Amino acid sequence: MSHLIIKNATLVDSSSIYEADILVHNGTIKCISKDITDKKYENMQIIDAKGLLLMPGGIDAHTHFNLDTGVAKSSDDFYTGTVAAACGGTTTIIDHMGFGKAGCSLQSRVDLYHEYAEGKAVIDYGLHGVIQHIDDNILKEMESIVLNGITSMKFYMTYGFMLSDSYAIKTLSKMKSLGGILCVHAESNDMIEHLKDFHFSKGNRSAIYHAYSRPDTTEAEAVHRIIELAKLADNAPLYIVHLSTHKGLKHIEKAQNEGLNVIAETCPQYLLLDEEYYNKENYEGLKYIISPPLREKYNQDKLWLGIKNSKISTIGTDHCSFNFSQKLEMGKEDFRKCPNGIAGVESRMSLMFSEGVSKKRITLNKFVEITSTNPAKIFGLYPKKGSLSIGSDADFVLFDPNKKDTITHKNLHENVDYTGYEGFEVKGCPVMTISRGEIIAENNNFTSKAGRGKYLKRDKPIMI
Amino acid sequence: MSHLIIKNATLVDSSSIYEADILVHNGTIKCISKDITDKKYENMQIIDAKGLLLMPGGIDAHTHFNLDTGVAKSSDDFYTGTVAAACGGTTTIIDHMGFGKAGCSLQSRVDLYHEYAEGKAVIDYGLHGVIQHIDDNILKEMESIVLNGITSMKFYMTYGFMLSDSYAIKTLSKMKSLGGILCVHAESNDMIEHLKDFHFSKGNRSAIYHAYSRPDTTEAEAVHRIIELAKLADNAPLYIVHLSTHKGLKHIEKAQNEGLNVIAETCPQYLLLDEEYYNKENYEGLKYIISPPLREKYNQDKLWLGIKNSKISTIGTDHCSFNFSQKLEMGKEDFRKCPNGIAGVESRMSLMFSEGVSKKRITLNKFVEITSTNPAKIFGLYPKKGSLSIGSDADFVLFDPNKKDTITHKNLHENVDYTGYEGFEVKGCPVMTISRGEIIAENNNFTSKAGRGKYLKRDKPIMI
Amino acid sequence: MSHLIIKNATLVDSSSIYEADILVHNGTIKCISKDITDKKYENMQIIDAKGLLLMPGGIDAHTHFNLDTGVAKSSDDFYTGTVAAACGGTTTIIDHMGFGKAGCSLQSRVDLYHEYAEGKAVIDYGLHGVIQHIDDNILKEMESIVLNGITSMKFYMTYGFMLSDSYAIKTLSKMKSLGGILCVHAESNDMIEHLKDFHFSKGNRSAIYHAYSRPDTTEAEAVHRIIELAKLADNAPLYIVHLSTHKGLKHIEKAQNEGLNVIAETCPQYLLLDEEYYNKENYEGLKYIISPPLREKYNQDKLWLGIKNSKISTIGTDHCSFNFSQKLEMGKEDFRKCPNGIAGVESRMSLMFSEGVSKKRITLNKFVEITSTNPAKIFGLYPKKGSLSIGSDADFVLFDPNKKDTITHKNLHENVDYTGYEGFEVKGCPVMTISRGEIIAENNNFTSKAGRGKYLKRDKPIMI
Amino acid sequence: MSHLIIKNATLVDSSSIYEADILVHNGTIKCISKDITDKKYENMQIIDAKGLLLMPGGIDAHTHFNLDTGVAKSSDDFYTGTVAAACGGTTTIIDHMGFGKAGCSLQSRVDLYHEYAEGKAVIDYGLHGVIQHIDDNILKEMESIVLNGITSMKFYMTYGFMLSDSYAIKTLSKMKSLGGILCVHAESNDMIEHLKDFHFSKGNRSAIYHAYSRPDTTEAEAVHRIIELAKLADNAPLYIVHLSTHKGLKHIEKAQNEGLNVIAETCPQYLLLDEEYYNKENYEGLKYIISPPLREKYNQDKLWLGIKNSKISTIGTDHCSFNFSQKLEMGKEDFRKCPNGIAGVESRMSLMFSEGVSKKRITLNKFVEITSTNPAKIFGLYPKKGSLSIGSDADFVLFDPNKKDTITHKNLHENVDYTGYEGFEVKGCPVMTISRGEIIAENNNFTSKAGRGKYLKRDKPIMI
Repeated sequence: MSHLIIKNATLVDSSSIYEADILVHNGTIKCISKDITDKKYENMQIIDAKGLLLMPGGIDAHTHFNLDTGVAKSSDDFYTGTVAAACGGTTTIIDHMGFGKAGCSLQSRVDLYHEYAEGKAVIDYGLHGVIQHIDDNILKEMESIVLNGITSMKFYMTYGFMLSDSYAIKTLSKMKSLGGILCVHAESNDMIEHLKDFHFSKGNRSAIYHAYSRPDTTEAEAVHRIIELAKLADNAPLYIVHLSTHKGLKHIEKAQNEGLNVIAETCPQYLLLDEEYYNKENYEGLKYIISPPLREKYNQDKLWLGIKNSKISTIGTDHCSFNFSQKLEMGKEDFRKCPNGIAGVESRMSLMFSEGVSKKRITLNKFVEITSTNPAKIFGLYPKKGSLSIGSDADFVLFDPNKKDTITHKNLHENVDYTGYEGFEVKGCPVMTISRGEIIAENNNFTSKAGRGKYLKRDKPIMI
Repeated sequence: MSHLIIKNATLVDSSSIYEADILVHNGTIKCISKDITDKKYENMQIIDAKGLLLMPGGIDAHTHFNLDTGVAKSSDDFYTGTVAAACGGTTTIIDHMGFGKAGCSLQSRVDLYHEYAEGKAVIDYGLHGVIQHIDDNILKEMESIVLNGITSMKFYMTYGFMLSDSYAIKTLSKMKSLGGILCVHAESNDMIEHLKDFHFSKGNRSAIYHAYSRPDTTEAEAVHRIIELAKLADNAPLYIVHLSTHKGLKHIEKAQNEGLNVIAETCPQYLLLDEEYYNKENYEGLKYIISPPLREKYNQDKLWLGIKNSKISTIGTDHCSFNFSQKLEMGKEDFRKCPNGIAGVESRMSLMFSEGVSKKRITLNKFVEITSTNPAKIFGLYPKKGSLSIGSDADFVLFDPNKKDTITHKNLHENVDYTGYEGFEVKGCPVMTISRGEIIAENNNFTSKAGRGKYLKRDKPIMI
Repeated sequence: MSHLIIKNATLVDSSSIYEADILVHNGTIKCISKDITDKKYENMQIIDAKGLLLMPGGIDAHTHFNLDTGVAKSSDDFYTGTVAAACGGTTTIIDHMGFGKAGCSLQSRVDLYHEYAEGKAVIDYGLHGVIQHIDDNILKEMESIVLNGITSMKFYMTYGFMLSDSYAIKTLSKMKSLGGILCVHAESNDMIEHLKDFHFSKGNRSAIYHAYSRPDTTEAEAVHRIIELAKLADNAPLYIVHLSTHKGLKHIEKAQNEGLNVIAETCPQYLLLDEEYYNKENYEGLKYIISPPLREKYNQDKLWLGIKNSKISTIGTDHCSFNFSQKLEMGKEDFRKCPNGIAGVESRMSLMFSEGVSKKRITLNKFVEITSTNPAKIFGLYPKKGSLSIGSDADFVLFDPNKKDTITHKNLHENVDYTGYEGFEVKGCPVMTISRGEIIAENNNFTSKAGRGKYLKRDKPIMI
Repeated sequence: MSHLIIKNATLVDSSSIYEADILVHNGTIKCISKDITDKKYENMQIIDAKGLLLMPGGIDAHTHFNLDTGVAKSSDDFYTGTVAAACGGTTTIIDHMGFGKAGCSLQSRVDLYHEYAEGKAVIDYGLHGVIQHIDDNILKEMESIVLNGITSMKFYMTYGFMLSDSYAIKTLSKMKSLGGILCVHAESNDMIEHLKDFHFSKGNRSAIYHAYSRPDTTEAEAVHRIIELAKLADNAPLYIVHLSTHKGLKHIEKAQNEGLNVIAETCPQYLLLDEEYYNKENYEGLKYIISPPLREKYNQDKLWLGIKNSKISTIGTDHCSFNFSQKLEMGKEDFRKCPNGIAGVESRMSLMFSEGVSKKRITLNKFVEITSTNPAKIFGLYPKKGSLSIGSDADFVLFDPNKKDTITHKNLHENVDYTGYEGFEVKGCPVMTISRGEIIAENNNFTSKAGRGKYLKRDKPIMI
């Protein structure tokens, strides 16, 4: 179909709220008007959105589909993952590619992920590069990778093949010169390894020791260090993924106050779940083994305030689904062996709306800003994505702000045997998801087909 | 005329930037579209804005027209002041009413200011109330004043009739209960009086002693105190007018981090001029006698960063024009007697664009946010004002981002014998100002007539 | 007697710990040696102090004996108060004189307090002046008062006759020029009055509302303000009495980091008791009505750390004893009418030793520093008092560090019907108190006579 | 000689100032008294010290004598170095042993340094261990080393063989369990290496680039990191050597506020010299190549305030003398190759007295505390050293507080061809140095003989 008219919606972007009709043509926004009455449009589909909020479709800039850690594979691929995203109101994801073999080229990873996604993804998607090692070849390769639309890469301060500060500086400097942005997983490797061994050596093997092995200091020290390294690297911009602690946030705030471009992402799990979940009975604590771990509850308010005050700019999910059965099998006897990760791509929009907007922690505009507009700007997708502007892709989510629901695993499309948000009551639900003018999900049903999602070659970041 | 089409403009609001055509009908925005080609509109005026930025008209929420201090009257009234505003790209002002006789009612001031404005104002205007004293009558009167659209009042911690913390708490509490917001002039009266006497007693009478009598501590202490008082008053929202110091900013940031609704305004003079101006020869330092005073230069970067990081939300001018001849006459022998105030309503938009956007200190979206959208939201004018939404008033400023100019007194419409920004070179100038669909200024010429501006009965603040 | 030899004691001052014998002659320290064996001394008394710590006698620089608030009189006078002090190991007090009639001269208060003390005091004593109002006469009078050994005065930011910041600046400036130091009771009067009325108006009349009417902000704001005022007054030195909050401490630390001479005193009650005491049944909460009030428990650790890190320099008691019967009578129906004050002069040394030294929060040297040496230096009594130097007054307390005791009202000499520390178990007790070479208390018995204490004409403060 | 009487001196320790006579017997303090008139002492030597200050002899806990970096050897050995120390008023040094061959045992270094010192040292000396690598053997060996009186070790975060955070945690944990203290050279290795290469690659080879390669961030980041690591290691105590920046100091203050035992040392060069020295002509900038480097001048005031406020506890010199001729030869073409180090052991006391006490930045007591008492306590030498207590070693320095001098290389005993303090005018000079009751230096002349110094087996640290 080439024309779609949505009438009577309340349009919400990161700045405005107003009622209008919206006309979509060939997948992009053509007209916004008080009253689109014209009958001339061919193949016109009309939706009456009275009482609904029409917002830019969600952008989840932090997923891990098809992740293979070497010892475990995540259960969502680009099909199940994007179907879940679509049903939850998300119209774009940017996937963080996993590590490949030691010494592999950047391009080899990109090639593999294109294979993963093609014919599978149901919404548009981008890719973040991943740094495993640094040498002249990789530095050279970064240039072409960025040119080809992968304008952000990720550096792990733990887990990774190469962790040294020296390599961090080289990577930051290169990304700065290329006009890209470096995403950083900020956790202090040596501290964590020490504490894991320390706790294990004392016979402490249950899930809570995952948290005790990664106290807030392990995040905060790494955040502080990478910020100082970025300053040295000619003030290279930084994107801190999945910030989880108040202590880390304070370092970020300080850097922002000094004028650095340090951008912070947090995730619903750090805003809504807390360390006590690791103490659930029947090994259910293992469900929440993620890194960084869930934190003491007091951090949550500080992170919400960080969002309100524009210190935290985006909400990703770090969606990385492992079945509880697998977590149990691998981690029951030793928290260190439990695969790290949790699903979340489907519930993100509803949770953030309900806990954020409905509970008056943030405004509606701020909701759009952090779930869509900011990720689009930071990762070079704006104004194609994340915007209700004329000419932008017609990627929308329609929310019923008053609809109530209870999150439960059986209603979700994520390909995993549990949800960490089981039983969460939400007020405010997506009732329709539109991607490039096509209704792809409605009332929790996926209504389109595999492979319709397109790869997004991304521009350079816009510093917000 | 009932229809206006602006074609090919780059539309910029506080979130978006995109090219589109815009259709105005009866003074409000009716349609935004890729290509408004329809010929059916009657009385249609078409403007080709190719290459221009179309933004919400500026809102200056801090002017003092017709100000009578008892010993001096400001030289701009609601006609000359709003003509100057219009020529500079501003389509709305909110005037801070001056003090009346001791013990006068709030309504008596409102009545007087309606008299001042009617038949004069050329752009739409609102009024801020002013607190001179607090008793049961005044507290009662505040209710009707707020209901009548004056949803913000100002409290002076210096100058005023009643300065006690006790009265501040009462005022804050009342405004909180009414859903309004209190604007505060935060300077520590006793400190300043002490220093003025101290310096004068030593024979120091020139303009620089105005600054030395009001060191940054005098602002910061007052900011700190009023914040603590607002916490006590059930976390009443606060709007700090004309913030001038890094030291004060730090208190505001701390309060925001604690979740308080403390909003900060700064002014172009604090971003662009500094304490050294008081040392100008031939008594020209007197031109810059304002309160708070110009500050040491290092504060400027901190304020700009405060804007970038969303700690400072708005740009007002504190426009209060006194002729240099008058300043000279009254203040030549004694800085304490020089009338406090400077003009600025006309240059605000151009200065902020040039120094902010062109010099890459802030983004275009941020420019719109601080000069228009945020004032509209905070002072209850949104989305009627400050927005490019369908249904909003068609208040626009069209900027040529590449046009260069030099600010000079003879080109300005402010009714005063100098400008503090003489010789400032700007890149980025307003070329057309549109108010409710009417072109009221073009290329620095006012093109409409006295009295066309309407009084704005304001809604309650939207907490941004 | 003219010679006293104390043998085998462990001598402890604010720097050293070592074993030696000490020879006292005519009330001052004549010799410290490894082994004072000489037999030639006439009228020699020998004490074997094996196993005991010999330290400079305690100095409590904050008592209120004979206090008359107008509506209530404290129950300890200079006799009972100093007997209690002596039995507790304190050999010097400095009393804060209370307010007199409006407009009275400084000297009239001094005269009255000399009357109070003469023939009564059993240990040496000094007096702090009190500022009730400021005019040229008072400013002039301050000069003679300081010359006559009252080198510190107190300014109340609440309670007082004159509270304005303007008067604070004048007082600070004058004291700075005279080389004295201003003690400040830092609580924000308007905030407190507002909250008292607010709570009372809601029918909240029990003791806990005393605390709720004086939240930590009311102390912190006043501390912040007086510091800023002191900066303005040529960086006049400040002594903040009875600091009770972490929030206030942070302001003090900041000032010290800027190089200001801001000295902080705290009291045992703020280190050891907390807000929960106000909820004691049978109106016993009234026992703890003091200003500032007891605080939330978390403040205690911060204050102890403040002592450890030399941000807090002295321990006073603010000893001001009102009988519980009187508190009950006056405050039972209205917390606002309960006399403010609690006794503490007798338990100070033992509590600080036990909770500080025995519990390893502070070192032995730090104990001497805060209970004796620092008060002596700050209030111009050093090295006559607060020191074990040759030539210093032989004012000693001998502690048995291992002796255990339980504090209970019936064992105390304070002339009041309860103690706030009832049931506190202490490890470390004074077993002998020596004043100018005379044993005045031994094993909890006073062994001397009324009126032996001498008035201390104090020198200018030594800035530590 | 077995008896020494010093009469009429003003005795000054870290707490007291008073006039008395002092009697020394067999090298230790036997008696302090008002008037030691007794004639019975055999072999008595009497010194009249009227008008002089008698203080505990200086303790320089940071020297590098006989240092062999592999490519350069420092020019002072234990003879020339300690003679210089003695002439400057220092009676104890604790030397930081240099690195040995990769993999060498701790004991092998100790053995070598005993060889270096025996027969050479003229004052008493201790040794700090040095960590080059960590394995089970070294961890085991640490136990015996500590038992043998080396209760502190040093860990280098740059330079060293093993730099990982993991090894730092292991070392900290072990030292904590042994009751010792870890000294840390806190500079971020990867940052520095990056910047050195960066600047060199741009052709920047002169001395100033040494400073530019080690900006304050390189110290502050390392200080922050080691503090976080120490927290993880069961709050192991930390001693930060040669702190040079305000930025680093702030991290230390924060840790102290959290209750950690983090002790900071600074050096005269960071208090008195600044970055501009690197720009001296004729390659004289090379004289000041030390690590950390001299800093921007504003840091000096902050460090002085850090001393005043007890955040910085000790003054070491990091004495490591390389001849200018050698610096020139090796570093003229490449700042990176210039040996790092400067002499200072001889001027420390005089500089600190003159710049600290005479200029009223610190009190006399504080001077003794930081130059003698604190190092003694922290490094397990108290009360044998650093004290004027009965029984303590009779290690004294007699200062003439009014004597003026100009520091110049030709008057110094350091075995090196320049001094960094050439031309510094001082007020306050040591006129006599006494070690264990023996006059070893007088009026700038060494008066004793090689090898009289004794090795100090140190106790565990006293946490101040």
